[in-house]
Amino acid sequence: MSFPLSNLTSGLRVPPGPVDLAAVETDAAPGFDGRKKDGEAALLALGPELADLQERLFADGKSGGRRSVLLVLQGMDTSGKGGTLRSTVGLVDPQGVRITSFKAPTEEERAHDFLWRITNALPPVGLIGVFDRSHYEDVLIARVRSLAPTEEIERRYDAINAWEADLEAKGTTIIKCMLHISADEQKARLLARLDDETKHWKYNPGDVDERERWSAYQEAYEIAIERTNTKVAPWHVIPADKKWYRNLAIGTLLHDALRSFDLGWPKADFDVEHEKQRLRDEKPL
Amino acid sequence: MSFPLSNLTSGLRVPPGPVDLAAVETDAAPGFDGRKKDGEAALLALGPELADLQERLFADGKSGGRRSVLLVLQGMDTSGKGGTLRSTVGLVDPQGVRITSFKAPTEEERAHDFLWRITNALPPVGLIGVFDRSHYEDVLIARVRSLAPTEEIERRYDAINAWEADLEAKGTTIIKCMLHISADEQKARLLARLDDETKHWKYNPGDVDERERWSAYQEAYEIAIERTNTKVAPWHVIPADKKWYRNLAIGTLLHDALRSFDLGWPKADFDVEHEKQRLRDEKPL
Repeated sequence: MSFPLSNLTSGLRVPPGPVDLAAVETDAAPGFDGRKKDGEAALLALGPELADLQERLFADGKSGGRRSVLLVLQGMDTSGKGGTLRSTVGLVDPQGVRITSFKAPTEEERAHDFLWRITNALPPVGLIGVFDRSHYEDVLIARVRSLAPTEEIERRYDAINAWEADLEAKGTTIIKCMLHISADEQKARLLARLDDETKHWKYNPGDVDERERWSAYQEAYEIAIERTNTKVAPWHVIPADKKWYRNLAIGTLLHDALRSFDLGWPKADFDVEHEKQRLRDEKPL
Repeated sequence: MSFPLSNLTSGLRVPPGPVDLAAVETDAAPGFDGRKKDGEAALLALGPELADLQERLFADGKSGGRRSVLLVLQGMDTSGKGGTLRSTVGLVDPQGVRITSFKAPTEEERAHDFLWRITNALPPVGLIGVFDRSHYEDVLIARVRSLAPTEEIERRYDAINAWEADLEAKGTTIIKCMLHISADEQKARLLARLDDETKHWKYNPGDVDERERWSAYQEAYEIAIERTNTKVAPWHVIPADKKWYRNLAIGTLLHDALRSFDLGWPKADFDVEHEKQRLRDEKPL
C-alpha cells in the first residue's frame, strides 16, 4: 500500500494574515493517512529520488546554472532541527549540502549588520544549504530578551523580506520551516535527555529557564511568521511532536522544491564521438 | 558469514622508504577475503558503529574536547574521491562532517602561502573534515606542470610535514589516502562517462590530455608520499579499481581512527536529579 504525498505539503504552508500557533495541533499528521511505519517507509522511498534530484541540481550548478536551495529550520529547543537534518538531508550526497548551525553571534558578527554572517553562510550554486537556526533568531530571541531596540527589530522584518526577495531573484529557492512542538512535548524530551547518560551533553539547565518564556517565544514566532510570510519565501509550520511526520514533511518539501526546477542533465559542450575516438586511439601510456 | 576487518588497514599503510606504486596492484583487495557483495555488506554493517563513534566525537567537541579527524583523499581523475565520500562519509550525521573540494587556487589564494586556504578549511573540534584533493596538489600537479620553482616544491614537503605535525599535536588525527587506479581503469571510466548522457557533465576533454602525463603523475605521487610519510601522518595507498573495496577500506580507516579515541559520553556538569525535579515541579506554562 502506498501513501500519496501530493497533499502533504500544501496544508503546511501558512496562509497570509495573522498567525495563531495555538490553533495548529503539534501532534497531528496533516495530509498523510498512514501511521508511523508508513511515514518512515514513505521517507525512505523518497530517498533515491531526492538523491537524483540533488545530483541534477549539483550538475546544473557545475554547468552554468544559478540555482540553489536554502532550507531554514527554526523551532524551540528539542523541536528536532538536528534530527530532521540527519533523517532528510542525510538521504542525499553530503558533497551537495552545506549545513550551518547558528549560535549566539560572536563579537565580530555583532559588529556587522545581522544579515552579514547569514549572507556568508549561503550555499554556493548547485548546493542545498541548510540553516539550523538562522537570521530569524534576530527577531525571535532578540525580541523576547530585548537584545535589540524595538525599532531595530521592526526594521529587521523588512530587511529580511528584502534580503530573501533578492536571494530568490538570484536563483535560490527558500524553504522556511518552523518545527512546532508543544510545551509538554518539550518537557518530555528534556526529561528523556536527563534519563539517558548518552544524552546529557545535549542538556543545558538554561533551557529550563527559557521555558518560562514559552508564550513570549510563541508570540514572537507568530509575529515573525506573519511579517515575513511572503509569496517568494513563504513559511511552513510543521507539526513536530511526531518525529516521523516532521521528517516526512520536510523531506517532501525539499523534494518538491528540487522537482520544481525540472532539471535535465547538462548537455555535453564537447564532441562526444570525437572524445571516444581519442581515447580509443590513444598510444600506450 | 562475517569477514573480519582487523587486518584490512594495516596492509594499506605505506612503509617508510621509497615508494613504488607500480608494485601495488590496483585491482586487489588486500586483507579482505570476501567478494563484492560481502564487502558492500561489511561497509553497511559498519555504518551504525561509525555513526555512533562520530556522535561521540561531536559530543566530545561540544564538551571541551580538542579532537577532530581530517580525511585527505587524493587520486587521479575518476579514482573515486566523490564516490568514496558518498559511500563512507554518507553513513554518518551530515552535521558532523565538513567537506572541502579543492579546485585550482583563486587569485586571492595564490597571493597567500599554499597552506593558507588549507588551514582555513580545517574541521572545527568534534568534526570530521574531508578534503577532496588537498595541499598535496601543490606538490603533485604543481610538480608535473612546473607551476612552482623546484626549490619551492622542495620546501613544500617539509612545510607540509611541519604543518601536519602541528595539527596532530593540537588534536587532529590525519588519515591520508591515495586512491590508486590503473591507467586502463581510468580509460574505462572515462569511456563509461561518455557512454552515459547523465554523466557528460562530469567529463572534461582536458582529462584526456592529462593522461599523457600519467607516468609523471605517478612519479610525483611516489615522491610526495615518500617525503611526507611521517609517523604522525602516514600515507595509505588504497587499491581503487574495485569501488567496493576502496569504500570499505576508507570506511574502515575512518572507523579505526574514531575508535582509537576511545571516547565515552561526556559527563553531566549539572545535577541531574535536581534538573529532573525542576522540570517536574514546573508551574503550568
